[in-house]
Amino acid sequence: MPLDATASGLFPIAPTPFTPDGAIDHGSVDTLIARYLAAGATGVTVLGIMGEAPKLEPEEALALAARFIEGFGALPVIVGVSAPGFAAMRALARAVMERGAAGVMIAPPPALRTDEQITGYYRQAVEAIGADIPFVIQDYPLTLSVQMTPKVIRQIVEENPSCVMLKHEDWPGLEKISALRGFQREGTLRPLSILTGNGGLFLDFEMERGADGAMTGYAFPEMLADVVRLQREGRREEAHDLFDAHLPLLRYEQQPGVGLAVRKYVLMRRGFIASDAQRKPGTALTAAARGEVDYLLSRLARHDERARL
Amino acid sequence: MPLDATASGLFPIAPTPFTPDGAIDHGSVDTLIARYLAAGATGVTVLGIMGEAPKLEPEEALALAARFIEGFGALPVIVGVSAPGFAAMRALARAVMERGAAGVMIAPPPALRTDEQITGYYRQAVEAIGADIPFVIQDYPLTLSVQMTPKVIRQIVEENPSCVMLKHEDWPGLEKISALRGFQREGTLRPLSILTGNGGLFLDFEMERGADGAMTGYAFPEMLADVVRLQREGRREEAHDLFDAHLPLLRYEQQPGVGLAVRKYVLMRRGFIASDAQRKPGTALTAAARGEVDYLLSRLARHDERARL
Amino acid sequence: MPLDATASGLFPIAPTPFTPDGAIDHGSVDTLIARYLAAGATGVTVLGIMGEAPKLEPEEALALAARFIEGFGALPVIVGVSAPGFAAMRALARAVMERGAAGVMIAPPPALRTDEQITGYYRQAVEAIGADIPFVIQDYPLTLSVQMTPKVIRQIVEENPSCVMLKHEDWPGLEKISALRGFQREGTLRPLSILTGNGGLFLDFEMERGADGAMTGYAFPEMLADVVRLQREGRREEAHDLFDAHLPLLRYEQQPGVGLAVRKYVLMRRGFIASDAQRKPGTALTAAARGEVDYLLSRLARHDERARL
Amino acid sequence: MPLDATASGLFPIAPTPFTPDGAIDHGSVDTLIARYLAAGATGVTVLGIMGEAPKLEPEEALALAARFIEGFGALPVIVGVSAPGFAAMRALARAVMERGAAGVMIAPPPALRTDEQITGYYRQAVEAIGADIPFVIQDYPLTLSVQMTPKVIRQIVEENPSCVMLKHEDWPGLEKISALRGFQREGTLRPLSILTGNGGLFLDFEMERGADGAMTGYAFPEMLADVVRLQREGRREEAHDLFDAHLPLLRYEQQPGVGLAVRKYVLMRRGFIASDAQRKPGTALTAAARGEVDYLLSRLARHDERARL
Repeated sequence: MPLDATASGLFPIAPTPFTPDGAIDHGSVDTLIARYLAAGATGVTVLGIMGEAPKLEPEEALALAARFIEGFGALPVIVGVSAPGFAAMRALARAVMERGAAGVMIAPPPALRTDEQITGYYRQAVEAIGADIPFVIQDYPLTLSVQMTPKVIRQIVEENPSCVMLKHEDWPGLEKISALRGFQREGTLRPLSILTGNGGLFLDFEMERGADGAMTGYAFPEMLADVVRLQREGRREEAHDLFDAHLPLLRYEQQPGVGLAVRKYVLMRRGFIASDAQRKPGTALTAAARGEVDYLLSRLARHDERARL
Repeated sequence: MPLDATASGLFPIAPTPFTPDGAIDHGSVDTLIARYLAAGATGVTVLGIMGEAPKLEPEEALALAARFIEGFGALPVIVGVSAPGFAAMRALARAVMERGAAGVMIAPPPALRTDEQITGYYRQAVEAIGADIPFVIQDYPLTLSVQMTPKVIRQIVEENPSCVMLKHEDWPGLEKISALRGFQREGTLRPLSILTGNGGLFLDFEMERGADGAMTGYAFPEMLADVVRLQREGRREEAHDLFDAHLPLLRYEQQPGVGLAVRKYVLMRRGFIASDAQRKPGTALTAAARGEVDYLLSRLARHDERARL
Repeated sequence: MPLDATASGLFPIAPTPFTPDGAIDHGSVDTLIARYLAAGATGVTVLGIMGEAPKLEPEEALALAARFIEGFGALPVIVGVSAPGFAAMRALARAVMERGAAGVMIAPPPALRTDEQITGYYRQAVEAIGADIPFVIQDYPLTLSVQMTPKVIRQIVEENPSCVMLKHEDWPGLEKISALRGFQREGTLRPLSILTGNGGLFLDFEMERGADGAMTGYAFPEMLADVVRLQREGRREEAHDLFDAHLPLLRYEQQPGVGLAVRKYVLMRRGFIASDAQRKPGTALTAAARGEVDYLLSRLARHDERARL
Repeated sequence: MPLDATASGLFPIAPTPFTPDGAIDHGSVDTLIARYLAAGATGVTVLGIMGEAPKLEPEEALALAARFIEGFGALPVIVGVSAPGFAAMRALARAVMERGAAGVMIAPPPALRTDEQITGYYRQAVEAIGADIPFVIQDYPLTLSVQMTPKVIRQIVEENPSCVMLKHEDWPGLEKISALRGFQREGTLRPLSILTGNGGLFLDFEMERGADGAMTGYAFPEMLADVVRLQREGRREEAHDLFDAHLPLLRYEQQPGVGLAVRKYVLMRRGFIASDAQRKPGTALTAAARGEVDYLLSRLARHDERARL
């Protein structure tokens, strides 16, 4: 079933599990899928930036996506297809859609600066992959150095009917959600799913501003799913209590560069993946850092049983 | 008394209080000084980036520094003297030292890239201001886009005897503290005070890695002083408990761009300053954002009486 | 007489002459003025990026501007007033207009990215300095890292009646001139003077695309004035012949960073200024580089007598 | 025969010829090879930035490299293998070496900032591809935003015996060549081939500073080969005369972004390739731009018969 603007809940950004020698660990992929489903994921996103996608060969990328698609069954799988050339983007996009993906995610290349360059890029990308493939805008200025205003996002949505979702990870970003929801209230923007990233650092308030859920890879997807659910049920205090309990660790994981090593280390300790290896070039945790993460986990366990390892 | 490498504790980064029409609010400066002293500040830093220094006229900057110097009495005042030209840097540095400043802080200009450019810049800056003025290196890549390795910092310290302190606000930055302290253990780096910034986002662990204290402007300087003290007394759990209670608000204040508006708003609500006005160009909080800050304050008040307003 | 959209010809970007010990060399300012007038300048721009403006104290900047205003008599003087804060921008702008400047030039701060940020900045700047002061947009992405599309420039012009000129130095930039002139032909943009910068590297074709003249500091302002004049008289071949003869030297002077040292060295050799000193931090020419410039001058002298030194 | 530090002369940066519908035009590849050989190329570089390498599928890249290797016979072919992950870099590097490439070229990823990051990256890259493959450092700050000092380049060369060449395209860059040659005179750097890029914009003086030749894709490779040869024969005036005649067109081709369109257009007009098509996303020349290039060609033809079309 194709992705549409009603998508909500939790779409974890899946890491790619590797064995220590750099091969894809397909057994861990299966475990990861099972754990995500148990955590309440309503979909999943693969081949994102934190999925080490640029380090995969085309056939590896396709195989990985196919495995997630199979594992998630009827639930939607979004596949990152960002690429320097539109030929490669089209090839991957069409291949994963054939295999059952629900949609694709497209990040703008870092050189884009002006509003026209950004909207022009998305028009060309849609022309390249085909207007029949639902797609997600990735708005991640900290890493991509491309800044999109709410108006630019609106223009992309309006010009491209196949745009159904925004992966929102601007920082600061709360006002952007309010602005987009404001456009919708005033009737100048059609329905659009907004899932938020940034490691979840502002998920507590993003839900209150109008986000539909989370799309990020924090190593406790259960917490993300719970906060989304609690907020939707209007249980604000409970949502913040749970979120705040996780914030010390979440903040630690959200550090640029070293963050993926933290995430994979916690996922490994939790049994989601067998090894925290990254394909080279990657970053590794020092003993001091591992000690700090362990300490944060032990503190978290007082509030959330799931952190007891 | 000149600043030296034994400096420690809390040096708040002072905002510049303005009246709503953009004039410096000298009454609020006096209040701010009193509150910082009551909070346990062991010094203060003025004319930093979050002090809106580039928006002040030279004579305003000098007058503001002088007022802090007078108010802090025997405690050290560090003055930011970063400037596009060395003539202006020298003029301000010598003027504030004459008036009793303890030292100056110098940020690298954003165009610097290579290790040689960075170390060369500090050599030239010291030549410009004079080798008799103690100075602080500001290491703030997120805003300044200049990246200094531990070795580069060591080289600056070794080449310039008047360098006595590092304002550390790299992100991620914990390993950098460990690396510098490791240099000292192995005897390749002389004593150096390390105070940490970044809004305090990692102060809990920075102290454990070997920082001497905090130099940042979070709107609860009391918490910063307490965490520094508790960690130095070995009361790790208490330090983390207090820190974690503040983290939801601290994280909100640490957002780029809008952060200063949050900080000034909380300082205003706490009575540290009369108005949260910024000199133009500045950013303002929306009603939604003010509501979120108020909510975070009310939640914080359950753990820390000082947040009860 | 205030600057307006009919301005044309040559506005040299004036360097600030310093003595070897870093003081402003007012004698050389007078010589420079005389030589610019003799070269056919129809105006002049002071306190630009290549004028080392950020290294001047406010009173020095004002005195320098005043001297140029006096020296240029009835001809328009444009003063760069770019500043981190609007208070300083306003102070300098109003002060130089009182002393007889024809208008001011405003560069966008490097952090601006989106179209809205850029147009918003100019609205605020105009509010700050006052809508009665004619101003010039500086569009210089290579150095300022701000990219303005033709539509953004049009919006700034349309929103701010006091905007009368574009200093164009995008690279590549020829299509931008054509786009703006196209807007005017289709009636969506009011008259606007376009003077081009970038050291003159594309002046030959910029005139053919519709530029009104040059605003740049190449050390042979006579050539710039001649090319502008020849192109306006329809003497295309002569314009290109003269331009091409200068291109080897012009290209050498247009190098980032070291370019100002080349320019000041040639101006010194030509007797426009007494010393090629820059205020610190600056760059100096090696003996090899000076030899190369001398060689280029000797080769140029075969085509242009004015290079015979 | 593997590439070594004695390489010199002209290594054109080969564009990838496409048919208008985006397929690789293998017939034009053969023509291009024949023309490069006739122009005096002593080698060739394929899959560089201006070769649109990131837009090719892995198998296309390999096939293209293989065709150039076959066509160049005993002359060395360098293959660009820059990639986000070391697995892909290794796969391509080993595959092209098996097919007879002489060496590979590695550009640093744009995120690298400090000297340690840069030298560390090259150590890891060599570990990944194997120490038996001769490699070229690509030093191109304008596009890659990574700045390497002469000392960093020396360190890479000294740490990695398989480093045999520098593709030099810093801007400004003349002093860098002098610094590296100075290291060699003082005995702190082993022999290293230096070929220069940047479209050839400073080839005239680069040869005088000690470059061994050119590695760039200007659409008149004959001129590049001639200037290299004339300078090596000590015929300085003739070298500069020829270079200066080409400079107006060369400067036009060297514009960022649009430059490849200019280059492919001229190569098409000269019969080197059948179409100037770029694979998407690409840039196209306007009619005005084509007219300007045609005009520059006609002017050049007065000095260089080869421009008569």
